[in-house]
Amino acid sequence: VNDTIDRLAEYFSRFPGIGPRQARRFVYYLLGRDPSELEGLVRTVRELKESVRSCARCLRFFPKDAAASTLCLICRDDGRDASALMVVSRDVDLETVERSRSFHGYYFVLGGSLPILEKNPESRIRVRELDKAIAAQSAQGLSEIILALNVNAEGENTEEYLKERLAPLSTHNIRISVLGRGLSTGTELEYADSATIKNAVKNRA
Amino acid sequence: VNDTIDRLAEYFSRFPGIGPRQARRFVYYLLGRDPSELEGLVRTVRELKESVRSCARCLRFFPKDAAASTLCLICRDDGRDASALMVVSRDVDLETVERSRSFHGYYFVLGGSLPILEKNPESRIRVRELDKAIAAQSAQGLSEIILALNVNAEGENTEEYLKERLAPLSTHNIRISVLGRGLSTGTELEYADSATIKNAVKNRA
Amino acid sequence: VNDTIDRLAEYFSRFPGIGPRQARRFVYYLLGRDPSELEGLVRTVRELKESVRSCARCLRFFPKDAAASTLCLICRDDGRDASALMVVSRDVDLETVERSRSFHGYYFVLGGSLPILEKNPESRIRVRELDKAIAAQSAQGLSEIILALNVNAEGENTEEYLKERLAPLSTHNIRISVLGRGLSTGTELEYADSATIKNAVKNRA
Amino acid sequence: VNDTIDRLAEYFSRFPGIGPRQARRFVYYLLGRDPSELEGLVRTVRELKESVRSCARCLRFFPKDAAASTLCLICRDDGRDASALMVVSRDVDLETVERSRSFHGYYFVLGGSLPILEKNPESRIRVRELDKAIAAQSAQGLSEIILALNVNAEGENTEEYLKERLAPLSTHNIRISVLGRGLSTGTELEYADSATIKNAVKNRA
Repeated sequence: VNDTIDRLAEYFSRFPGIGPRQARRFVYYLLGRDPSELEGLVRTVRELKESVRSCARCLRFFPKDAAASTLCLICRDDGRDASALMVVSRDVDLETVERSRSFHGYYFVLGGSLPILEKNPESRIRVRELDKAIAAQSAQGLSEIILALNVNAEGENTEEYLKERLAPLSTHNIRISVLGRGLSTGTELEYADSATIKNAVKNRA
Repeated sequence: VNDTIDRLAEYFSRFPGIGPRQARRFVYYLLGRDPSELEGLVRTVRELKESVRSCARCLRFFPKDAAASTLCLICRDDGRDASALMVVSRDVDLETVERSRSFHGYYFVLGGSLPILEKNPESRIRVRELDKAIAAQSAQGLSEIILALNVNAEGENTEEYLKERLAPLSTHNIRISVLGRGLSTGTELEYADSATIKNAVKNRA
Repeated sequence: VNDTIDRLAEYFSRFPGIGPRQARRFVYYLLGRDPSELEGLVRTVRELKESVRSCARCLRFFPKDAAASTLCLICRDDGRDASALMVVSRDVDLETVERSRSFHGYYFVLGGSLPILEKNPESRIRVRELDKAIAAQSAQGLSEIILALNVNAEGENTEEYLKERLAPLSTHNIRISVLGRGLSTGTELEYADSATIKNAVKNRA
Repeated sequence: VNDTIDRLAEYFSRFPGIGPRQARRFVYYLLGRDPSELEGLVRTVRELKESVRSCARCLRFFPKDAAASTLCLICRDDGRDASALMVVSRDVDLETVERSRSFHGYYFVLGGSLPILEKNPESRIRVRELDKAIAAQSAQGLSEIILALNVNAEGENTEEYLKERLAPLSTHNIRISVLGRGLSTGTELEYADSATIKNAVKNRA
């Protein structure tokens, strides 16, 4: 039977990392909640799109506020370092970098990454919007674009694609860099792969 | 800032098995969906309580239907074996047993299990409702109650509690049994614990 | 270079569950030991075959002793229950069952299990020796042979093969049984497979 | 009974990463081998110390050869870069770095690492021997010592200790460096810790 329990489980099973069984447990969890909690959840989901907008500059999601700004708090902050732009795949990557307090420039969120052999990159990642963000920041003294992507096949493919696409910027004295490779926290040398060791030796400090 | 993203992540982080980070990824996942999909999710959550009711007999959740029956499809099915009642903790346990097509009697869903030393069992599991379900099925020839609980501390505690509480039923020729213990699929003898081996030897067939 | 380190690592990498990297770590571990510890290890390995023999009846390994018996302590113990014979794959399985103190008959160690489609079972498991052990115990009143094998494809294949091979024994009033299937310690009903639930319902007690 | 099986299992249970149960399986594995294989293993263990020596310079283990050199093949190779010395904890670390073909200087093997609050570092790692190795290589133009330690508490403690101890070398124009920190192969930005991101931003290239 295609009843409400099944249909709701179907919605949850599309959530990232959720299989059909856990989706079903979510439904039973909700069935056990007070009506007020369910109503709260529904209201919040409904508010989500209305109260959140995509930043006109970095494209991350941010809460609309009284100021009705089209820019998120970071892009609005002119105390940040306009010489640097960090390109990330997703909002959560941006949040992880912000939490590390190690970067003080502006960001751009690609919205994804490029699978190997993707024929139509512009359908997967926001490259035209990236061009515009670069143009805008160039007027403010942009001198370095940092590609901050996952160190896996898809991330490296995205990195290669962007490096090639952005190569002409070197004539405008804009340098393209990537996050440093090396030993990450918890690495035991014995188990490190050769690429990581090579990078760690090269980047020794 | 306590914005909508944070508040929605807070709701999701209470879902079973979900930490704060995955809760946040759920929110970003929803932000990336079409408004129509979001609206569908919201509508389905809203319909949930209206379209689902708790069976008046076994207490499981089931979809309301045209017949407006107060009983779920199983409890409504008089082709099932009224001599047996299986007591489970949760709706998902009932579903797992049904999927195995190995039991043809009726069920009762306790709604939980008893932590060790729980002072107030009736606040944790639906024992008064169980009494009523037993009384009702007695009139139909109930002769065996099967306790089908997890084989862990809380499940065994619940089993002990119910065995004691239901002991007087033996005078009515109702037998209390528990699911058989032994080697489950995938068990390697070398790694089996002594209790499991003891049960497997006792229940050899 | 095929030096001693490499050659010793090669020996260790054939140990059950040991990969080439851990095998190498074993070698470096030994290089760091005192010569006396190494000598002790070597002496003990050397003594192994001399001081251990295979029981003439159950075929398990056991320490030779002053009595120079050809039987292990269990097979020598006439206080055990001669009506039952438990057939296991390996010495460690026998040890696990003994530790559970749930079986008081005699054992037979097959020395392995049968891969699916094995053409030549007698090359894999000691079936001719099993025949002899059964014949011997028959004279002592054997009435049940318990097949105690792993609950996986190879174990079940071995079980099928032995059931067929031993079927004629039923005319001698010797029953062939298998360890009971059901919920093993730690099983959560929700995650149990259908075969396990079916067995647990059938073997309820 | 403290028989040979028990005693050999006891030896194996001291091997790195081996518990009592796997140790026992090793023993039964050996009991099932041909006498010739056991003899081969015993012979190889015995040869180990005789055929392997500790390099007089880097202290790693290496196979003795016809040349009867006191130096391992690396330390004997005067084509390597004498300006660099890499300090590692263990022989396996050295092997992992060599496999990456990313370092062409000489090595020194500390023989371990320093637990936090270790009172007597010289009992744990070969610091006096390190002093001698540095003095020797200084005569050959040593200009950089690379500390290549695990990125965990013990590795970082060892790093701190050595940095302080070797600090005076700066007056001899010998620089102390550490392997570069950053994103290692497989890192997903979202899950990277703040220290790793900070290093990755600092070491961007």
